Amino acid sequence: MDRFNLAVIGATGAVGEIFLSILEERNFPLNKLRLCASERSLGKKIKFANEDHYIEPVTNELLSDCDFVFISASSEVSLDIAPRAAKLGSIAIDDSSAFRMNKTVPLVVPEVNSKDLDQHKGIVSIPNCSTTPLTMVLHELGKLAKINRVIVDTFQSVSGAGAGAVFELDSQNHAMYENSEIQTSIHPHRIAFNVIPQIDDFTESGYTNEEMKMINETKKILHRPDLNISATCVRVPVKIGHSEAVHIEFEQNIDIESAYSALSNAPGITLLDDTEKNHYPMPINCEHKDDVMVGRLRKDVSLPNGIVLWLSCDNLRKGAALNAIQIAESIIEKRLI
Amino acid sequence: MDRFNLAVIGATGAVGEIFLSILEERNFPLNKLRLCASERSLGKKIKFANEDHYIEPVTNELLSDCDFVFISASSEVSLDIAPRAAKLGSIAIDDSSAFRMNKTVPLVVPEVNSKDLDQHKGIVSIPNCSTTPLTMVLHELGKLAKINRVIVDTFQSVSGAGAGAVFELDSQNHAMYENSEIQTSIHPHRIAFNVIPQIDDFTESGYTNEEMKMINETKKILHRPDLNISATCVRVPVKIGHSEAVHIEFEQNIDIESAYSALSNAPGITLLDDTEKNHYPMPINCEHKDDVMVGRLRKDVSLPNGIVLWLSCDNLRKGAALNAIQIAESIIEKRLI
Repeated sequence: MDRFNLAVIGATGAVGEIFLSILEERNFPLNKLRLCASERSLGKKIKFANEDHYIEPVTNELLSDCDFVFISASSEVSLDIAPRAAKLGSIAIDDSSAFRMNKTVPLVVPEVNSKDLDQHKGIVSIPNCSTTPLTMVLHELGKLAKINRVIVDTFQSVSGAGAGAVFELDSQNHAMYENSEIQTSIHPHRIAFNVIPQIDDFTESGYTNEEMKMINETKKILHRPDLNISATCVRVPVKIGHSEAVHIEFEQNIDIESAYSALSNAPGITLLDDTEKNHYPMPINCEHKDDVMVGRLRKDVSLPNGIVLWLSCDNLRKGAALNAIQIAESIIEKRLI
Repeated sequence: MDRFNLAVIGATGAVGEIFLSILEERNFPLNKLRLCASERSLGKKIKFANEDHYIEPVTNELLSDCDFVFISASSEVSLDIAPRAAKLGSIAIDDSSAFRMNKTVPLVVPEVNSKDLDQHKGIVSIPNCSTTPLTMVLHELGKLAKINRVIVDTFQSVSGAGAGAVFELDSQNHAMYENSEIQTSIHPHRIAFNVIPQIDDFTESGYTNEEMKMINETKKILHRPDLNISATCVRVPVKIGHSEAVHIEFEQNIDIESAYSALSNAPGITLLDDTEKNHYPMPINCEHKDDVMVGRLRKDVSLPNGIVLWLSCDNLRKGAALNAIQIAESIIEKRLI
């Protein structure tokens, strides 16, 4: 079996850390692993598979030495590194929004559109962490009947904004209990004991960038530019796990049993739906899990052709690191490298 | 000016406490105030307007002595006391769900349907704390064009489940920081660093009672039994302040300026909507405020006749105690007592 050289850019970040632990869990066919991060982490030691690895700078030697370069830093970093990596013959799998809507870059959730990898030109984007679980559910239910409209409201954890945002939530909680001054730097307002209906900047339409990402990325991944979809994205004081209330309108009537059956057979989806036992997805039961958890499936009382559901997903795993690794696995399996 | 005798049943609860502070703030035309609570609080002393009041049992003497009896305890307590109060000639203003859907009982948000008070028969219900702000917004926007469909997802604070739930959230936070065992009694699962997509029990339709309350109460208050409305109600780790993402579909196109203008002139509503300054409603800016805060108003990108907005409201004030006091004030003003 072939083995591959892989670099992780952003190895010390929230997603980078999870990326490394999933690589090990899944026994990724690794030859050489090289780790990079921002300048202040250079030389830092990280243990992987019982071996020490040192954070090194991103050089052209490193990029050309690697088969895959996973990037989870900022859009600026991605804009610099991904094209260089592609030019030097490696495949960049990019967690930023920089290339997602670029027509020559596949935006992939392997369970949904791995076929789009066939056209890759050295850069593959992974979707926003709130987009991925939504597309998986819509893809499965869309096999039952055409979906005309989707309304989704999100409950997104702070780790979606990076490790610093988790630290900020803890610090604010402590400050509140100690009656000391509350510092705010990452979120636009205090997040402790609060919810913030803003993730990323606002666009002219009144939607935020995060909302427009969910809307546009979902259309691209599902190959449904005509899909009517609206979103409100909200930050909640949860550390890991994004949840979504999803309202789906189909072209025709879907019985709830068919929806159950479609979702229970879907790869990467676990149904957690037993209202008698109060079982449904929540951040606390999706954390550290690979699957998207779906529950509270019901006929929409306001619409004959509507279905309502609720999902939770570990935003660092399927929302980011796991999806990236699955893309690499899919590229290997399809012999596209 | 006439002055009135008033009893508060549930005076030591989360809503009861706020009720007393609002009574004082608004200079309610009070003659005599009598306070009741559960047996274990009997004899307890509460200061109101610089005078000591003692918790006493609910007797027929007390009920017939009072003009208004405000009840915020459990549905069982309301089912017992409200009809007795009405029979003994006082007006029960009830915070429970026990009588809300009863055809002979007005369910009132004074800014929306104070006219329904004209038919009262001694019991008036106040809506569920998540229903009230929604109806205020729909009532104002419904003057611009007929509303065909509403989808609402809520972010409800723990104080909606009473003072014990606030204590539980704090206890769970402390236990998590101290690595000690987490106790869960009021919510069905841990609420600290979590969101729970269940408030109240499940109904056969798969919706919870809380969701069906929002749906049915909204139709009753707006006199719109035909309104298509769906909801997902979610508990979030916030102490005070319910928020809602609201998606409204009108019969015809509404320009966003008309919506702004309608809401900015509406009684009980404050527009907080400046995306350039990141100003929008949140629990931390609606706490202790009387008004429903509305923001993030935008055209729905998925629908030509759609508007999306976000609201936050102090669930103990306009969501409960304030609305009850406004009902009493309205009854006095209309000389219905």
